[in-house]
Amino acid sequence: MHPDHLKKLMEDVAAGRLKPDDAVAQLATLPFEDLGFARIDHHRFVRRGFPEAVYGEGKTSAEIARILDTFQDRNVPALVTRLDAPKAGSLKKRFKALVYHRRARLAYLGDPPDDLIGSVVVVSGGTSDAPVAEEAFLTARYLGASAELFQDVGVAGLHRVAAALPSLRKARAVIAVAGMEGALPSVVAGLTGAMVIGVPTSVGFGVQDRGKTPLFAMLSSCVPGLVVVNVDAGFSAGYAAAVINRLKEPA
Amino acid sequence: MHPDHLKKLMEDVAAGRLKPDDAVAQLATLPFEDLGFARIDHHRFVRRGFPEAVYGEGKTSAEIARILDTFQDRNVPALVTRLDAPKAGSLKKRFKALVYHRRARLAYLGDPPDDLIGSVVVVSGGTSDAPVAEEAFLTARYLGASAELFQDVGVAGLHRVAAALPSLRKARAVIAVAGMEGALPSVVAGLTGAMVIGVPTSVGFGVQDRGKTPLFAMLSSCVPGLVVVNVDAGFSAGYAAAVINRLKEPA
Amino acid sequence: MHPDHLKKLMEDVAAGRLKPDDAVAQLATLPFEDLGFARIDHHRFVRRGFPEAVYGEGKTSAEIARILDTFQDRNVPALVTRLDAPKAGSLKKRFKALVYHRRARLAYLGDPPDDLIGSVVVVSGGTSDAPVAEEAFLTARYLGASAELFQDVGVAGLHRVAAALPSLRKARAVIAVAGMEGALPSVVAGLTGAMVIGVPTSVGFGVQDRGKTPLFAMLSSCVPGLVVVNVDAGFSAGYAAAVINRLKEPA
Amino acid sequence: MHPDHLKKLMEDVAAGRLKPDDAVAQLATLPFEDLGFARIDHHRFVRRGFPEAVYGEGKTSAEIARILDTFQDRNVPALVTRLDAPKAGSLKKRFKALVYHRRARLAYLGDPPDDLIGSVVVVSGGTSDAPVAEEAFLTARYLGASAELFQDVGVAGLHRVAAALPSLRKARAVIAVAGMEGALPSVVAGLTGAMVIGVPTSVGFGVQDRGKTPLFAMLSSCVPGLVVVNVDAGFSAGYAAAVINRLKEPA
Amino acid sequence: MHPDHLKKLMEDVAAGRLKPDDAVAQLATLPFEDLGFARIDHHRFVRRGFPEAVYGEGKTSAEIARILDTFQDRNVPALVTRLDAPKAGSLKKRFKALVYHRRARLAYLGDPPDDLIGSVVVVSGGTSDAPVAEEAFLTARYLGASAELFQDVGVAGLHRVAAALPSLRKARAVIAVAGMEGALPSVVAGLTGAMVIGVPTSVGFGVQDRGKTPLFAMLSSCVPGLVVVNVDAGFSAGYAAAVINRLKEPA
Amino acid sequence: MHPDHLKKLMEDVAAGRLKPDDAVAQLATLPFEDLGFARIDHHRFVRRGFPEAVYGEGKTSAEIARILDTFQDRNVPALVTRLDAPKAGSLKKRFKALVYHRRARLAYLGDPPDDLIGSVVVVSGGTSDAPVAEEAFLTARYLGASAELFQDVGVAGLHRVAAALPSLRKARAVIAVAGMEGALPSVVAGLTGAMVIGVPTSVGFGVQDRGKTPLFAMLSSCVPGLVVVNVDAGFSAGYAAAVINRLKEPA
Amino acid sequence: MHPDHLKKLMEDVAAGRLKPDDAVAQLATLPFEDLGFARIDHHRFVRRGFPEAVYGEGKTSAEIARILDTFQDRNVPALVTRLDAPKAGSLKKRFKALVYHRRARLAYLGDPPDDLIGSVVVVSGGTSDAPVAEEAFLTARYLGASAELFQDVGVAGLHRVAAALPSLRKARAVIAVAGMEGALPSVVAGLTGAMVIGVPTSVGFGVQDRGKTPLFAMLSSCVPGLVVVNVDAGFSAGYAAAVINRLKEPA
Amino acid sequence: MHPDHLKKLMEDVAAGRLKPDDAVAQLATLPFEDLGFARIDHHRFVRRGFPEAVYGEGKTSAEIARILDTFQDRNVPALVTRLDAPKAGSLKKRFKALVYHRRARLAYLGDPPDDLIGSVVVVSGGTSDAPVAEEAFLTARYLGASAELFQDVGVAGLHRVAAALPSLRKARAVIAVAGMEGALPSVVAGLTGAMVIGVPTSVGFGVQDRGKTPLFAMLSSCVPGLVVVNVDAGFSAGYAAAVINRLKEPA
Repeated sequence: MHPDHLKKLMEDVAAGRLKPDDAVAQLATLPFEDLGFARIDHHRFVRRGFPEAVYGEGKTSAEIARILDTFQDRNVPALVTRLDAPKAGSLKKRFKALVYHRRARLAYLGDPPDDLIGSVVVVSGGTSDAPVAEEAFLTARYLGASAELFQDVGVAGLHRVAAALPSLRKARAVIAVAGMEGALPSVVAGLTGAMVIGVPTSVGFGVQDRGKTPLFAMLSSCVPGLVVVNVDAGFSAGYAAAVINRLKEPA
Repeated sequence: MHPDHLKKLMEDVAAGRLKPDDAVAQLATLPFEDLGFARIDHHRFVRRGFPEAVYGEGKTSAEIARILDTFQDRNVPALVTRLDAPKAGSLKKRFKALVYHRRARLAYLGDPPDDLIGSVVVVSGGTSDAPVAEEAFLTARYLGASAELFQDVGVAGLHRVAAALPSLRKARAVIAVAGMEGALPSVVAGLTGAMVIGVPTSVGFGVQDRGKTPLFAMLSSCVPGLVVVNVDAGFSAGYAAAVINRLKEPA
Repeated sequence: MHPDHLKKLMEDVAAGRLKPDDAVAQLATLPFEDLGFARIDHHRFVRRGFPEAVYGEGKTSAEIARILDTFQDRNVPALVTRLDAPKAGSLKKRFKALVYHRRARLAYLGDPPDDLIGSVVVVSGGTSDAPVAEEAFLTARYLGASAELFQDVGVAGLHRVAAALPSLRKARAVIAVAGMEGALPSVVAGLTGAMVIGVPTSVGFGVQDRGKTPLFAMLSSCVPGLVVVNVDAGFSAGYAAAVINRLKEPA
Repeated sequence: MHPDHLKKLMEDVAAGRLKPDDAVAQLATLPFEDLGFARIDHHRFVRRGFPEAVYGEGKTSAEIARILDTFQDRNVPALVTRLDAPKAGSLKKRFKALVYHRRARLAYLGDPPDDLIGSVVVVSGGTSDAPVAEEAFLTARYLGASAELFQDVGVAGLHRVAAALPSLRKARAVIAVAGMEGALPSVVAGLTGAMVIGVPTSVGFGVQDRGKTPLFAMLSSCVPGLVVVNVDAGFSAGYAAAVINRLKEPA
Repeated sequence: MHPDHLKKLMEDVAAGRLKPDDAVAQLATLPFEDLGFARIDHHRFVRRGFPEAVYGEGKTSAEIARILDTFQDRNVPALVTRLDAPKAGSLKKRFKALVYHRRARLAYLGDPPDDLIGSVVVVSGGTSDAPVAEEAFLTARYLGASAELFQDVGVAGLHRVAAALPSLRKARAVIAVAGMEGALPSVVAGLTGAMVIGVPTSVGFGVQDRGKTPLFAMLSSCVPGLVVVNVDAGFSAGYAAAVINRLKEPA
Repeated sequence: MHPDHLKKLMEDVAAGRLKPDDAVAQLATLPFEDLGFARIDHHRFVRRGFPEAVYGEGKTSAEIARILDTFQDRNVPALVTRLDAPKAGSLKKRFKALVYHRRARLAYLGDPPDDLIGSVVVVSGGTSDAPVAEEAFLTARYLGASAELFQDVGVAGLHRVAAALPSLRKARAVIAVAGMEGALPSVVAGLTGAMVIGVPTSVGFGVQDRGKTPLFAMLSSCVPGLVVVNVDAGFSAGYAAAVINRLKEPA
Repeated sequence: MHPDHLKKLMEDVAAGRLKPDDAVAQLATLPFEDLGFARIDHHRFVRRGFPEAVYGEGKTSAEIARILDTFQDRNVPALVTRLDAPKAGSLKKRFKALVYHRRARLAYLGDPPDDLIGSVVVVSGGTSDAPVAEEAFLTARYLGASAELFQDVGVAGLHRVAAALPSLRKARAVIAVAGMEGALPSVVAGLTGAMVIGVPTSVGFGVQDRGKTPLFAMLSSCVPGLVVVNVDAGFSAGYAAAVINRLKEPA
Repeated sequence: MHPDHLKKLMEDVAAGRLKPDDAVAQLATLPFEDLGFARIDHHRFVRRGFPEAVYGEGKTSAEIARILDTFQDRNVPALVTRLDAPKAGSLKKRFKALVYHRRARLAYLGDPPDDLIGSVVVVSGGTSDAPVAEEAFLTARYLGASAELFQDVGVAGLHRVAAALPSLRKARAVIAVAGMEGALPSVVAGLTGAMVIGVPTSVGFGVQDRGKTPLFAMLSSCVPGLVVVNVDAGFSAGYAAAVINRLKEPA
């Protein structure tokens, strides 16, 4: 509930247009609509100018379709994450405008953002990290960030960081995606003054433990300026980078 | 090695002031001095205008003193983290100007930052989370951020978020510190458009598992815009917030 | 063995209708039939007026059929949990009256409870938690509770709690189902004076760890009045809620 | 904010006693004061007629004293949990009326509940489980439940269940406390029709894993009607039992 | 190498039938043939009158066939464990006498033991534990033990222990198989004076953790006389029970 | 309740010496007294001719003294396990006859067993494993087994197994105690036809994980005839060995 | 960048053939090309005379083909690890010279090493460990080591070590591959003066935990001279052995 | 038993100097004395020219003294690892020649090795890793390796690797010691052609998990040529490096 709306309610009561009892009845649902929690759902993305996001895993394509309908009705663009190809296929039959990125398992419905600002750089350790890296990269872009993607920049190709260095050095936020031992974000955090968001991936075997080892390594890193998201959480990283990227001049 | 230095070296060779062999000898150590890794040590903090940071745990006060000497010689301010009171006591005998924050186990040596800019807000779940929250808050401030600290804003006092809301809403970066089930960062991330850095603490018992449960909960959160640092890692959070806080207007 | 049965046995001995040796022979099996453990099996559900419950996983449909036969012979209604669709299909060929809920993987054979009393409210965090939430809801209902189900009440829709609030506030037991970081039960426990049974689900990825993270988060919650069952244990939650729901006025 | 308070506010506006703008200003903090979360803090215990509860661990006795002052000013009784003996000693100097239970590490300040109703039965597995069992028992009593405590009812003394059986059979809620392999709650849940709240304790060694083994065993139990709280969480169990115990006749 | 063989070797040398050098050459391989390790392989089963055992998992049916050939040549009976049905099918084509137990995934090739002695009793918690229980039961029998199998004796049917009690009370070794919370072995160990071998199974879900919970519960049990084998290790339990079962009168 | 007792009860009823109602009253507590569970407590040790056992950890010496009084009154010998030296000291003041083994943390009160029969062999891996090995050894002896103890037979001294071999080969039960990687029980199981009870100890560091690594290694051993008890559980192993050791000739 | 290349650059500048500015431009990428990190990629294998290695998992055969093209162009031999049969099939269509080892999931493209030197011995515990053992063996050979492979040398066949002993005793590096409890490397490390590289495999079940148990056991081993690689990491072990094997006489 | 000894035995029998029965008696202990296991104990260190090693933790200084006596009698030098200062103090009273390194918790008794050969380089990540790094360094030296130690070469000082590079490049074995995220060994393995032995330390907090995170990171590293030892296992690393370091020219 917008403060103006609240003030209007008060004025209606003051003006006798609304009885106190009716105002109470209206306000009964207000604390939840008006608290941040609820706003997350209705207003957060819109307020931020960000598209809505739908977690595609564990939902049927029919369920996703119904959700997309709602957004389309409200003319709100939407991202669908963790969407597998068969579901994407059936959704595309209904939503012709839906764009689907198979590797990133990401779909987008709506007008793309008008102009991309700032600079988000995504680097990834190896070819196998590509799905997560691309999910992060595309998310950042769909959320309005001018973004670059440097893949396969792991221990098996760190020299390629050289090519990325000019970008890294002027980046407002860096996303470093790595499986195996997850050392890339530490290395990158040492090379740039920007905030680095580490994204561990489940690439590896044995004690790599489906991503827990790089996750814990990133969290235990002795290089400051590094924060971390969940294993394979490309969307979360892209979202966070987009939030940082939009910051204005500090007061 | 500064690019100018490198160019100078080339010019010396071109001018015959330096023999190719001697230049090769000089360059032998260069890749390491000139790569980001090394710069972390020598130049990163300085380049950023941030003080140096010393991890105090597992170092004797004599070792820390020797490190602080180096920084003092170079006129570089320094933070010492995870410094217990006895070590701080013996350091203060030698470094009169050292400021020690007992609860945060944080010491600072040097001139404080000239002016504090932007807005970093630290909220913590409970009284027991205070040491970590204060470490984050003080770190952000010593790194030049205008910061506010709202303590005891957990499930046992969420209404106090109300007081923090105006600050949260205009914050450039938010740090949310919580032990137990670690739900606070999710709640706060829903209330603000800013980046939220979750800091799990080891406060709790049983399956709280010395902080792993709130850490994993924060990483598994379904609210986007939330990134995470290690358990009890107040310094890391403060550092990351300070980096974000300083961002200029995006291009 | 019913106390009356035991007394009858004694009277038969006293009356000379039964020889002490024969009574001993009968009683040889009694300690086990008569102790709570055994009664669980034979009498517990019946005594409570609850249907029998069969754990369907790891049993063939032939085995389940044989068990259902026994119950049908004794005219005892029965629930089959964790029953997949193919097994349900072959059981329905034999037991025409069997009702199968595919999403909840729950089957029921017998007359439904006569009247539903009290009030059990089930809330779930997201669409993907639906199977567990429906299993809890249907279990509570088949065990005689008047129940309501509010789905998709997670961080992505907490405002819908508003609609559920009147129900939550008058509920005798609340079941809160959540995956991801599992914060919903803590939130709900803060909103209601009723006992809240938290059900973590395996919805999520990475360190969500197939439900351990929300489980541990619920157990570590600082909100009192919250108890917990196993990951995805909708039946256990529904059963416990039904037990609570039936309580009479305290002495 | 009590609904009456809210209505009063409206009436004040309607009567011209309060300007719309001032009402808006008052309501600005309301969503948080008026939502369940906040009510937890201010009103939950009072609304329920329960005393306030303070988590004593990680708080200094000075901090606890300040909190108790607040409650005393509002004439609200209070429990302090996980309070060690030295802190209790210094608190008693200030609060003469404070009652301290050393084994349960529990303190109480205020008038005891007027009359104890219903029936909560606490059984514990062994002598070493006594601190947790007593914390659960005392909590239930201070929250108004008529409670009984049967200790040392583990595998080394299950026959003592016999003595407890009449109590167990008429209990409205049972709390079963056990370390080691944690089988007691399963056994007790088979013996009673009441809801059983299992409390794992950290008593044991090796793979007992400071309570995780009995916790997981209780959660994995095949006996329905059993719910669980955190390791050593006697207060949580006592609180939940008190909530259940007070239920009225269902509609 | 049998002690008699060794003595024979010495006598051959003493008698000049064998040159010292040749004896040394023969003995070169002896330390390994003659130490227990090696005897495990060649002689252990034979010495004990036990059939050989082949771990079927991860071996092709061709590999297993070659191993069985060796045993058949030496006229030694053999067990194949963890043998899936397709491999068993192709082995049966070649070894007509092979007996395959599909549920226990166990095959036997050779003459069955002449007479079964002593008494091994296998009890299992539920229908889903049947494969493990049957593997234990059949192993004990093929290794010469007179064995009985009581299935489905869990918390959902403990009264059936009554039927098993006379057998349990005269058993020389008891095998108790249980998934879920794994309480059955503790209960059975309390009912019998015999050694109880607990076999945890992977039956259950959530924190049952593919058998770790019942394993840890059995290891943490406060009832003495209970030892444990690996999760789902029916063969190990059957083997150990057979070893115990054959013990003669103590000196 | 002894079967004779039960028959006597019936006869009393049959003879009119006991009214049916009174018999029912007596029998009301019977299921629990007469079921194995209860017998564990009252009769198990006595029936077996074993002393009672008291778990000393987490009990005050006063509590232990009260328990020992009970046993002394009934003229039943008793073992106290995990008893630290200070508690043992104060117990010795009251029970002059108490024998205390400091290293094994084991006390014994009562007449020692009349004659030791059979053969239990305890081998341990290293000097640091001594407390656990001695607890196992002494337990077996106090429970009537003729026992031998071979210490420091690990990888740093396996040749000493040679000295133990004759004993191992005629042992009825072997206890193998090992920390570190826990390979000793596997090796010993290969050298003997007897049942081997592996006891992992918490000796080691890093991933030895306070005993979990040798525990899991023993459970994963590919040598059959090996069963396992909890980490550092010398008493459990000694008890189990004593049970096996007493077995008579099989039928 | 080869030192000669660097010197050439300097000479070009000194000779006026290259302008300082252009040299700076070339050197801009140099710190990364010239630091070890980068050299790993471009030069490490070549410098060592080792073929390049490509991690095949998570790469499409098209991606692998493009990488192999690069190597073929530079006339550098290459290993592809963890390559499944379908991908190998499609690669063979394009690279006729590709040799594929199905069991080891290893492919090799290029001329085999000219002569094999030194001595690497690979021993494995069981038939199921063959894929890992062969991967280690083939890797060592393709990297120029004269290697031998002794399979199935576990507890179920340690006497076969006898045959391997002469090889083990003269080996420069030994690779010991084992699943289950992972005791083989400890045993082998006791039998040889050479460095032993333990390779745990995921062969086993229950608490074997997909290789963590043998891994931890090897790391906890009390036998010195034993180092360890990741679970199933045959390539890593073969590579390390090849590095050791090539060592020259020490100065 | 030396082959010559064995041949002598045969000749004695052949010559009638030894009766076959007596030879058998002597040989009864032989398999164990003659197998590698036993040789580990008696001969391994001597055969290698390495001093004996005693694990000091969990042994009393009296026990250690008795062991050192044995070595001194045999004129064999000895290392004592994990020896705390008080024990070292009391040992020094008895063994005047004992050299004690307090930080490394390492003692040495005997003549130091005559000449140090080859080249072992130890690098450590930070000051807090010093105890482990020094234990590795001293062990390598006492075992005859010419060794160098470069401390504090972590992310907070990687440029110091530059100074170490010439040493690293000509090292025969490198030991890389690191806590926190454990990235140093991966970095070092990329910089050198030598075998790198990674030693994780328990330095760090939170998910660093007392060394498991750097251990798992090192094991998951994508840089080949890296092997690993247990957490804080400086002795194991030094020993392994010394074994590698002594290798002669390959055949």
